[in-house]
Amino acid sequence: MKTYCFGIDVGGTTVKCGLFETAGKLCDKWEIKTRIGNGGEQVLPDIAAAIEKKLKERGIDKADVAGIGIGVPGPVREGKVPFAVNLHWGETDIEGVLGQLTGLPVKAGNDANVAALGEMWQGGAEGHKDAIVITLGTGVGGGIIVDGRIVEGAHGAGGEVGHAHVADDIKEPCNCGNTGCLEQVASATGIVRLAREELDRMDANDQTNLNPEKLSAKSVFDEYKKGDEVAARVVNRFASYLGTALGAYAVVTDPEIIVLGGGVSKAGEALIDAVSRYYRAYAFAACKNTPIVLAKLGNDAGIYGSAKLAIDSIG
Amino acid sequence: MKTYCFGIDVGGTTVKCGLFETAGKLCDKWEIKTRIGNGGEQVLPDIAAAIEKKLKERGIDKADVAGIGIGVPGPVREGKVPFAVNLHWGETDIEGVLGQLTGLPVKAGNDANVAALGEMWQGGAEGHKDAIVITLGTGVGGGIIVDGRIVEGAHGAGGEVGHAHVADDIKEPCNCGNTGCLEQVASATGIVRLAREELDRMDANDQTNLNPEKLSAKSVFDEYKKGDEVAARVVNRFASYLGTALGAYAVVTDPEIIVLGGGVSKAGEALIDAVSRYYRAYAFAACKNTPIVLAKLGNDAGIYGSAKLAIDSIG
Repeated sequence: MKTYCFGIDVGGTTVKCGLFETAGKLCDKWEIKTRIGNGGEQVLPDIAAAIEKKLKERGIDKADVAGIGIGVPGPVREGKVPFAVNLHWGETDIEGVLGQLTGLPVKAGNDANVAALGEMWQGGAEGHKDAIVITLGTGVGGGIIVDGRIVEGAHGAGGEVGHAHVADDIKEPCNCGNTGCLEQVASATGIVRLAREELDRMDANDQTNLNPEKLSAKSVFDEYKKGDEVAARVVNRFASYLGTALGAYAVVTDPEIIVLGGGVSKAGEALIDAVSRYYRAYAFAACKNTPIVLAKLGNDAGIYGSAKLAIDSIG
Repeated sequence: MKTYCFGIDVGGTTVKCGLFETAGKLCDKWEIKTRIGNGGEQVLPDIAAAIEKKLKERGIDKADVAGIGIGVPGPVREGKVPFAVNLHWGETDIEGVLGQLTGLPVKAGNDANVAALGEMWQGGAEGHKDAIVITLGTGVGGGIIVDGRIVEGAHGAGGEVGHAHVADDIKEPCNCGNTGCLEQVASATGIVRLAREELDRMDANDQTNLNPEKLSAKSVFDEYKKGDEVAARVVNRFASYLGTALGAYAVVTDPEIIVLGGGVSKAGEALIDAVSRYYRAYAFAACKNTPIVLAKLGNDAGIYGSAKLAIDSIG
């Protein structure tokens, strides 16, 4: 195994870059802007230039670099995406183009899947080979790890766990076009939606410190921790949806561990306790004690996972 | 690769046995009784004797046998089960014991998982490497295939898809101890449960040919096919539960194909059409066109899958 590799995490605003030792140590991390003009045609050349610059700056010979792992926001299959909306990309052969630009082996994956791999490597699921990692952010994403490898799926939709139908009473469409998706009730925006519903439903006996003008997942969890009853209703409803869905996912791959990340996971143990309560009620007997834990790598999960992808695939 | 292998499917009443060419052809199949007396201690010796007898009868040299695959009704992990209720077994090292008795390499798996592998090899999912196979029988079981291999899971519960919580209104406990499991509304007995509920709910305007004394999944589907409205309500409710659950499972592993087997699948295309309707409504965009098809191997799925398990693992 060569000494170094790169882990790249492409977002719609910035590209996060990491230089790793293939033994696992993060040596350097930095960001560049994602230039999405002209169909995002500069994104991969900018990444190639950033890598060349870093190698020069550190005096690293390309012959000592195993390769580049890269996570992108789109359904990656065999190194290509048919599209990546946030990057303004149409069909793009990521591995082909970035490989040609850098002369290095490249392995591409979906960003949420890659972040899951990062959490397995050095984060919340460290030491495990079978994990379900769920990211509770603006949306709900995830990655499924079976026997140490990402499940990409036949259409690049492995781990798209935000789009199970869980709520018949939600009639507004999800970003995916369906209605009643987990994402609509378990993302940060989903929690705000549930909070609005609870506030609308309050009667004269209810008291709350939730401010209808400043609702956020954070404010809901903050008030919940202080004992606010309306916030508790919101958290219980959220946790019921998510815990039940996790029970359904667990009977598919029966993971060793379930990891919750993303902005909502900043609520910490209060989140874990609430979700675990519903998970344990509905999970299959053999899976009831599967630990549910917090992600550890935060915004670095993507670069860690991309680096791991490169290490596993390129060697 | 040696010429022959055995595929063994252990049930609570009979053991199904198959002699296969490792190239895939089923040469011979037969059954022996499952003797579950004395903690099921005769089950593995009886299988060993049946194999020895078959080799002698056919004049096959043991040196030409790659090995034995065996499916058992229990949570198999690394060749062992902690228990197998229907066989009266406590902790049993299946691969160790049967290997010692026969002098052949043995690979063991859970019976539902192994049947799924059989359907992938020569059944409804033939030609695919990523599949979800669901068995709708007295219970609801299944097997998840990712990249051509069974997902066993951390506790042997991979593919226990009958035990996702899907129905809040069912208060009676499932065999697993939880309430509202998919198995309670999508198995043959689950369909009878839903039919009873619909019959209880009928008012003076409703007419049905369903006979409350002779309810079965078959009678419900038979009347449904003839246009019976009450039977249609039952089928729609069943299909709604199952189709929605399949949508949730599909965002976990994103299979190439979904296969429905077990006794309920004798309803044929009427089953596929009803379930597909709800699946397509709620499945994630990328997975909406994933084919849902009927299983093909019937009761032989287990011996096919066990043989395939032996071939893949022993080589």
